[in-house]
Amino acid sequence: MTTLTPSDKALVPFVSVDHMMQLVHHIGIEEVLAGLADYIEADFRRWELFDKTPRVASHSAEGVIELMPTSDGEVYGFKYVNGHPKNTKEGLQTVTAFGLLADVGNGYPVLLSEMTILTALRTAATSALVARYLAPKGATTMAMIGNGAQSEFQSLAMKRIVGIDTVRLWDTDRAATEKAARNLSGLGLNVVKCDSAEDSMEGAQIITTCTADKQYATILTDNMIGSGVHINAIGGDCPGKTELAPAILDRSDVFVEFPPQTRIEGEIQQMAEDFTVTELWKVMTGAAQGRTSADQITLFDSVGFAIEDFSALRYVRDRIAGTDYYHDLDLLADPDDPRDLFGMVKRAAPQ
Amino acid sequence: MTTLTPSDKALVPFVSVDHMMQLVHHIGIEEVLAGLADYIEADFRRWELFDKTPRVASHSAEGVIELMPTSDGEVYGFKYVNGHPKNTKEGLQTVTAFGLLADVGNGYPVLLSEMTILTALRTAATSALVARYLAPKGATTMAMIGNGAQSEFQSLAMKRIVGIDTVRLWDTDRAATEKAARNLSGLGLNVVKCDSAEDSMEGAQIITTCTADKQYATILTDNMIGSGVHINAIGGDCPGKTELAPAILDRSDVFVEFPPQTRIEGEIQQMAEDFTVTELWKVMTGAAQGRTSADQITLFDSVGFAIEDFSALRYVRDRIAGTDYYHDLDLLADPDDPRDLFGMVKRAAPQ
Repeated sequence: MTTLTPSDKALVPFVSVDHMMQLVHHIGIEEVLAGLADYIEADFRRWELFDKTPRVASHSAEGVIELMPTSDGEVYGFKYVNGHPKNTKEGLQTVTAFGLLADVGNGYPVLLSEMTILTALRTAATSALVARYLAPKGATTMAMIGNGAQSEFQSLAMKRIVGIDTVRLWDTDRAATEKAARNLSGLGLNVVKCDSAEDSMEGAQIITTCTADKQYATILTDNMIGSGVHINAIGGDCPGKTELAPAILDRSDVFVEFPPQTRIEGEIQQMAEDFTVTELWKVMTGAAQGRTSADQITLFDSVGFAIEDFSALRYVRDRIAGTDYYHDLDLLADPDDPRDLFGMVKRAAPQ
Repeated sequence: MTTLTPSDKALVPFVSVDHMMQLVHHIGIEEVLAGLADYIEADFRRWELFDKTPRVASHSAEGVIELMPTSDGEVYGFKYVNGHPKNTKEGLQTVTAFGLLADVGNGYPVLLSEMTILTALRTAATSALVARYLAPKGATTMAMIGNGAQSEFQSLAMKRIVGIDTVRLWDTDRAATEKAARNLSGLGLNVVKCDSAEDSMEGAQIITTCTADKQYATILTDNMIGSGVHINAIGGDCPGKTELAPAILDRSDVFVEFPPQTRIEGEIQQMAEDFTVTELWKVMTGAAQGRTSADQITLFDSVGFAIEDFSALRYVRDRIAGTDYYHDLDLLADPDDPRDLFGMVKRAAPQ
């Protein structure tokens, strides 16, 4: 008896945008951020296990489409992500993404998930995880420069994971600041709307920059940065896009995810090829030092790496088990006899 | 008023395995093969336009998982595909695949599709398209060596596109031959079950090899091949996997899709790095010659290239328009205000 119902092996759990939002509310957004940080930290600590390749990018005049694959030898993952700075003008997201996990042993996908929301969550979790290692002890205040789609996620992650109580918002577009302040109200943070970048940095131990222009910009100049702060530089994340004056990099100890990628995409693309950086995984395993003095400027030159997406997808896979926050997608052809793909198609003919 | 219903931009048309089979029967499998060959030929003729990269492969002891991206400057496409030769022993497909098209201008995906069935169809369409250029005029008979999942698709494509009337089946596993013969019955081909590879090549102008072992094998030895035939070598398609004796390659004019990839993955991995090959797109544009004499042995060293998948996805996208053979997938987060991703998540909270 032939049936058209696909077998279990042919069905891939799919987490839609709607299911992702339901899952986040079911767990609680701060708990999700903390959970993601734990998964990311666990994977950074076994960094050497991973198959690491710089992302595979397809550039165009309007933006970039990238595939970010990695594998820990048992599970394979990749993310599709685009970056199109002009999209906002047309009412579209600058960045959209989805991702997949598969079983290395047989190559069958085991999870397909939206990653536009998940990427914002994992980027924030990574920022806060890194700040927990590098920011001055007892940091209470973050300057959030650039109040776009990432800003609220960054703020909440720093609250939950680092313990800040105040976020100072600044954006050249006042409406963006108003939006972020409105979204963050009632979530347990003191939210201060500031009138300039300098104003936002008043009393801040952590400075996060996340602006969206695809061009060399100088959001922070050297004279704006005092000693002892931690800079979380999110926005300089593709060739030709940076936010910090090179003089700041010279004064800072710079920490990165994966040097071959960061040297192309990060703030350090402005520096010499042998500019000294420290790999974050080494800080997390204890193989390298993080912050060593109160006066030091630490700088996370964040570009986003495939392993963080892998960790985030692992987290989602573990959390959806036994819930209704996914549905099964008939993505894989799976004939009863694997050599009989044609027979499966033939038998599906309408009577 | 905020709604949780995603906007049109957030929805990506998805063609499941079941929808793909329905679409194939709606159009007719031979018409699909002919349509795919037309799309592939059109894209080969504008070959120089495409962004071409060898596939991005993640190898393991059990097999390989690959991403195959390409772009024509307006549309971006990629395929996820695995190759795990031992899967059949566990009742799984050796190869499963899915693919995606996206708009280069804004990075938004516009089609997600199963590609396990579609890959078998496009591989067969490519084989037959190439044979139409290279096989002896008036070819009537194909030897089909290896009667696994690809064999019936290959046979039907050669019937529809090249005009053969007879297929001679051979496999070391008699059950595979019986399966292929059963599937091909009633489809307008004379089907002959053969007792050896030599037997299958009796009177054949086209010889297709498609066996699955991930190892250097010699399915065809030099003395088995007479003059004037066209060899369609499908199975040698990854490092360490070949089917033909090198002496055959020496006697043949070898045609390939994309030399940098074929030299790694194809039959010619056995040959010197400067072994002479002809690019098929040049044969199709008239920039290079195909078959020039009746005695010549032509050989298509097929490994499968990203542009063929791109063509196949374009074909599917055009054919599903206005039909019910897809459903919309809530894959992309698309807040009303693109900077307000967090607000979209916040407003999705259960009341």
